[in-house]
Amino acid sequence: MSEESRMLKESTSINDTMEEEVEERDPESNPLNESLLKRNRTLSSNPLALVGAKVSYIESLDYEINENDLFKQDWRSRSRTQVLQYIFWKWTLAFLVGLLTGVIATLINLAVENIAGYKLLAVVSYIQKERYLTGFLYFTGINFLLTFVAAILCVCFAPTAAGPGIPEIKAYLNGIDTPNMYGATTLFVKIIGSIGAVSAGLDLGKEGPLVHIGSCIASLLGQGGPDNYRIKWHWLRYFNNDRDRRDLITCGASSGVCAAFRAPVGGVLFALEEVATWWRSALLWRTFFSTAVVVVVLRATIELCHKGKCGLFGEGGLIMFDVSNVTVRYNVMDIIPVAIIGVLGGLLGSLYNYVLHKVLRLYNLINQKGKIYKLLLSLSVALFTSVCQYGLPFLAKCTRCSSSLPESVCPTTGRSGNFKQFNCPDGYYNDLATLLLTTNDDAVRNIFSTSTPLEYQPSSILIFFALYCILGLITFGIAVPSGLFLPIILMGSGYGRLLGIIMGPHTSIDQGLFAVLGAASLMAGSMRMTVSLCVIFLELTNNLLLLPITMIVLLIAKTVGDSFNPSIYEIILHLKGLPFMDANPEPWMRNLTVGELIDVKPAVVSFRGVEKVANIVNALRNTTHNGFPVMDCGVVPATGVATEATELHGIILRAHLIQVLKKKWFLKERRRTEEWEVREKFTWVELAEREGNIKDVAVTKEEMEMFVDLHPLTNTTPFTVLESISVAKAMILFRQVGLRHMLVVPKYQASGVSPVIGILTRQDLLAYNILTVFPHLAKSKKK
Amino acid sequence: MSEESRMLKESTSINDTMEEEVEERDPESNPLNESLLKRNRTLSSNPLALVGAKVSYIESLDYEINENDLFKQDWRSRSRTQVLQYIFWKWTLAFLVGLLTGVIATLINLAVENIAGYKLLAVVSYIQKERYLTGFLYFTGINFLLTFVAAILCVCFAPTAAGPGIPEIKAYLNGIDTPNMYGATTLFVKIIGSIGAVSAGLDLGKEGPLVHIGSCIASLLGQGGPDNYRIKWHWLRYFNNDRDRRDLITCGASSGVCAAFRAPVGGVLFALEEVATWWRSALLWRTFFSTAVVVVVLRATIELCHKGKCGLFGEGGLIMFDVSNVTVRYNVMDIIPVAIIGVLGGLLGSLYNYVLHKVLRLYNLINQKGKIYKLLLSLSVALFTSVCQYGLPFLAKCTRCSSSLPESVCPTTGRSGNFKQFNCPDGYYNDLATLLLTTNDDAVRNIFSTSTPLEYQPSSILIFFALYCILGLITFGIAVPSGLFLPIILMGSGYGRLLGIIMGPHTSIDQGLFAVLGAASLMAGSMRMTVSLCVIFLELTNNLLLLPITMIVLLIAKTVGDSFNPSIYEIILHLKGLPFMDANPEPWMRNLTVGELIDVKPAVVSFRGVEKVANIVNALRNTTHNGFPVMDCGVVPATGVATEATELHGIILRAHLIQVLKKKWFLKERRRTEEWEVREKFTWVELAEREGNIKDVAVTKEEMEMFVDLHPLTNTTPFTVLESISVAKAMILFRQVGLRHMLVVPKYQASGVSPVIGILTRQDLLAYNILTVFPHLAKSKKK
Repeated sequence: MSEESRMLKESTSINDTMEEEVEERDPESNPLNESLLKRNRTLSSNPLALVGAKVSYIESLDYEINENDLFKQDWRSRSRTQVLQYIFWKWTLAFLVGLLTGVIATLINLAVENIAGYKLLAVVSYIQKERYLTGFLYFTGINFLLTFVAAILCVCFAPTAAGPGIPEIKAYLNGIDTPNMYGATTLFVKIIGSIGAVSAGLDLGKEGPLVHIGSCIASLLGQGGPDNYRIKWHWLRYFNNDRDRRDLITCGASSGVCAAFRAPVGGVLFALEEVATWWRSALLWRTFFSTAVVVVVLRATIELCHKGKCGLFGEGGLIMFDVSNVTVRYNVMDIIPVAIIGVLGGLLGSLYNYVLHKVLRLYNLINQKGKIYKLLLSLSVALFTSVCQYGLPFLAKCTRCSSSLPESVCPTTGRSGNFKQFNCPDGYYNDLATLLLTTNDDAVRNIFSTSTPLEYQPSSILIFFALYCILGLITFGIAVPSGLFLPIILMGSGYGRLLGIIMGPHTSIDQGLFAVLGAASLMAGSMRMTVSLCVIFLELTNNLLLLPITMIVLLIAKTVGDSFNPSIYEIILHLKGLPFMDANPEPWMRNLTVGELIDVKPAVVSFRGVEKVANIVNALRNTTHNGFPVMDCGVVPATGVATEATELHGIILRAHLIQVLKKKWFLKERRRTEEWEVREKFTWVELAEREGNIKDVAVTKEEMEMFVDLHPLTNTTPFTVLESISVAKAMILFRQVGLRHMLVVPKYQASGVSPVIGILTRQDLLAYNILTVFPHLAKSKKK
Repeated sequence: MSEESRMLKESTSINDTMEEEVEERDPESNPLNESLLKRNRTLSSNPLALVGAKVSYIESLDYEINENDLFKQDWRSRSRTQVLQYIFWKWTLAFLVGLLTGVIATLINLAVENIAGYKLLAVVSYIQKERYLTGFLYFTGINFLLTFVAAILCVCFAPTAAGPGIPEIKAYLNGIDTPNMYGATTLFVKIIGSIGAVSAGLDLGKEGPLVHIGSCIASLLGQGGPDNYRIKWHWLRYFNNDRDRRDLITCGASSGVCAAFRAPVGGVLFALEEVATWWRSALLWRTFFSTAVVVVVLRATIELCHKGKCGLFGEGGLIMFDVSNVTVRYNVMDIIPVAIIGVLGGLLGSLYNYVLHKVLRLYNLINQKGKIYKLLLSLSVALFTSVCQYGLPFLAKCTRCSSSLPESVCPTTGRSGNFKQFNCPDGYYNDLATLLLTTNDDAVRNIFSTSTPLEYQPSSILIFFALYCILGLITFGIAVPSGLFLPIILMGSGYGRLLGIIMGPHTSIDQGLFAVLGAASLMAGSMRMTVSLCVIFLELTNNLLLLPITMIVLLIAKTVGDSFNPSIYEIILHLKGLPFMDANPEPWMRNLTVGELIDVKPAVVSFRGVEKVANIVNALRNTTHNGFPVMDCGVVPATGVATEATELHGIILRAHLIQVLKKKWFLKERRRTEEWEVREKFTWVELAEREGNIKDVAVTKEEMEMFVDLHPLTNTTPFTVLESISVAKAMILFRQVGLRHMLVVPKYQASGVSPVIGILTRQDLLAYNILTVFPHLAKSKKK
């Protein structure tokens, strides 16, 4: 670029027009209060979302590389050593994420198995002594206490730790920064809360929380520690950007899944299919590395615990549902029961999604009333669960142990085992107690057990299924860390086994396999994953022969479910109001141009290359925009067209403007600065910080009349679209490249036309927001 | 948009200027001959590539949706039924792709097992009668004949059927249309050639060809049959675009891998990790469906063949290397041998890539000399292979059968078996014959065999390894369908087993597992896949306990390999000159703007909205551009700026211009047409056809003076970038959105500035091409 272009024409026309606009229209002042009123008039963003039962202000992440002068300078000056250092730390962090997730998962498992184990042993001993009431009080009391600990932590210290956390992680990787999601407090509460809630025997799993824990660890490692005590190591600066944090959190999420199911490939695929929005081959490889580390850690722990040093751990848990020693036998005609499982699983899954949505809406209303209500809700659910788990087995008839089984196996009174004696005489077992009065993991293992066609009475399975349908619906929304995987697996296995009993005479498939397939079908029907779920089940059951029928079940269940409603994660995302950007644009988006969207938006607020401080302060105070175009007046250098020309220099971020104001980098006269002037004042590391509020900035009246050279801080390479482009294409670009701001340029080329006619953000491209402004599109959609 | 904007200002200034430019500069006339000379002057595309040892003209695919008036009309008129019809057929095609790939894979396996089986049985019977020379002549003769059939078909009818085809599929999914890759002839030759080449005992696999076969089937189904006999069913028109064909070919490629390894999840992941450039969650699901179908087909065939109706099939082959019954035992200290395998595998793999590259360059020189040379090369390799396979076992000493083995197992004289008698007396076996005088699949199974630590002498394994290193290098480039998987597995298993023998005393890992890990490490070292390879090995060996060590080996081998050279597929892509667009931009691309690229390109040729026929014909004849911007002169509607304004209407494709010329849709006067006028003449189906050459168009002198209204055929929603954007960002946009043309718009807004200053294509953004014009960037790169 020639030096001429750097010369500024001394004209303030554009600037003045802009200033008037700001004052007259006051584009989006205080949208937090006004947005609901405005909705039908202009396309305004609604940056609010439900975070941990609290409405919060949501920001977009910036995955784009901000190529301003300082960045370019920093980029050019990076030596080969620094690049290698960066790569080395990237891999070290991936290693640490895997290591810590593995260790924490082991600790959680250890704690759960021991707490729940000793609790159950005590209860069993009371029952053996026929002190049923004492047993009941003991059981309920302990569960109540454990739930109380989990809930009080969640309610008071980290409301974001409640629930599975997977929807928020999914949103984060889509570019939505939910506040307080990945802090140290959240991590701590999630770990303790998860131990408490799972040990309390609530109908929830540690799988979802483990995914969140993995992501928290990744985020904390990436930023060098908790928010207030961050280590400022030199190399950590490379990771202080949204792109690298995104990659780390992806590693964390896969490590979490891997730790939950001991499924390394499944973990990677889960992150790929369900959680991540962007994906690169290099990331595939790094997440794979993290999960490999997790597996090695888990394996080492299991080896250690085999020597009996871990209390009750290892008698159950961790190696979940190993059915590898089962000979799976099926023929072509078994496709019929398999198809039935799939169809019913899809129906039940979508029904579950539907009802859960209603329950969660109701719970939101309750939770909004106050902390005490949240706590009470959790405790009543815990109480109900305990009463049912303890009381219902008394309804079941005692079954005589099969004579082929040795006495040590049936009946059992110990910690685990498939034939619990409970209230039965010797030589008899209570099949419902086997399923209910145990940890969730063991319940799944027991119901998955193969070659035991006569173990469970149909009535017991029916009670089990009905109970877990109710518990699965009422437990998920309470204020404790809770995963969705295990409740669905429990429900699904009950339904599958029931179906197995009914279809038993007509098929050669084992009842245990029916339970496995039922669980798979309900998960596919509710969560709508296919490949990752298939691999997770493969790794869980450790039996490759199951693969073809699992695949068919999953495909059918997902297809059936998809024809009714979206996946449970999408429902939760929508319920929380997170502006998640879908992969596929709606069909009607092809009939709407970006220009039409811009027309209903407030006018864009832009700055000149060298801008008056007052203008900047005004714009920052009166709008909530996070990006402002920077334009210059001048002549076109090469052609030498002498007429009025406007040059689009780029886009500047609010955060950087605030830094300028805070550092008071003001000029007395309107002039361009030299590179060294900027470098003296700002470093790239400082510019990576996105915190800072305009309210904290104090500017004197004299300073207001001074100038700022915005050129060196402007991102000169923004992505742009023509005003004539369809919203569908703009959305694809926005999502694929991972943008925060997209500049809209006019299709006309003439003097007096602004080079930027608008800025689109994530909110502007959401189908829901567009439809509120263009309701006729919704009609054409239905037609 | 107001009606005003549709009014054309009667001024021809821009048009005239443009015309002069065309005549004066003649931007890229005949680039096929001149490109080499021009290279250092301007950034010109070099659209040539090596396709089947022949230099061909390569075109880009167009994954973008061409949103012109006709498309929009068609889009709006699509009823719900049509949308459902489209979805139904999409899934039906995915089903058919899986079904046909499964059936053809079965046929190939059947043919290979029977041809190779009876051949080997005959040879064994000659050897038993000690008629060694007859046996040799018989063996060599049959192999020679089989190779001859495979090679003559490839050389004469379908040169593109030679080799694995995977690099071309990878390129296709990246957006590069290699000619004649997916035709019916290619498919036929690939099937027959693959049967011939594999039965001939050459050191190549049917895996790569199966991937190509799957893609061919997908492409043929998508277009409704072979090029000349295409079924013109109504619904097929929905699939006549590059996007849907890309999705289908992805399904085909995964089905191929699945059929080759009976690895459904591995197939999907292979397509995802290695082959595909773009990926969507919906596609993950559809490919998964295709591979599920393949698995069901394979399973049904195996069940059928168990009844002995398939000749020798089923005694070997298909269920490849099942080691599920092996108890895998390893402890933490075994990480050392595992790491050694990984490092050596990475070193060997990259060395293999390096040497193979040299060999392929040499072969290219030979193959270019003519068909007879190609044939001779193939036949001499076949001769050498046969001589070695038959002759080398005579070098091995006979080993006495272990007394623990029953006589039916050791020695064997039948088709398969782990202890071949060959020339040995009864009670003895020849270990080298076990590995060499058999099909490649059986050789792998024999060398993978576990719990047989003393079966093979180190010298035999060494000979085996050395032979397959040589064969692996010289076989790949010959003119027959050849896969890379099996040669690398053979080489790797040899090296792994050798390492196992050396490290035997220091580790508890079985020698068979060493062979498996060696194969995995060499594949990771050469092909650089991780997750997909891991899953393929998992599904091949049917043993989940192997997973953690396989993961570690793969990660180490890939890391080591990556530090030396790119993956073998990338090397082949580069060798063929395919303009493959990498996922990551080079670091120096951040320092170069798109405007600088445009400066060294010939000026852009653009049209007015209503253009003179003569101008169109001139531009089409004198350039090779495939897209032309369409611009109008007028006033900006809303603001009413009266000064000279230029409107960018969009981009029009060469194919559509040729259709206009062919249909002689000319206007006597310069006017805009109505929508019905276009619809009468063109249908969206016709516009989807991309064939047609300007040379076939005859335009009379009177017609030359007439006009064409280009508006309705112009894609009004092209993707644009600012001239100030960095090449790195432009490349990311180009690849992520899947573009063919990217318009560059000026950052200046003024009258007299053209709204489009250039068009970038795939070739312009390739690092190699940029570096030839900006050699100083290469220097900074090295620094």
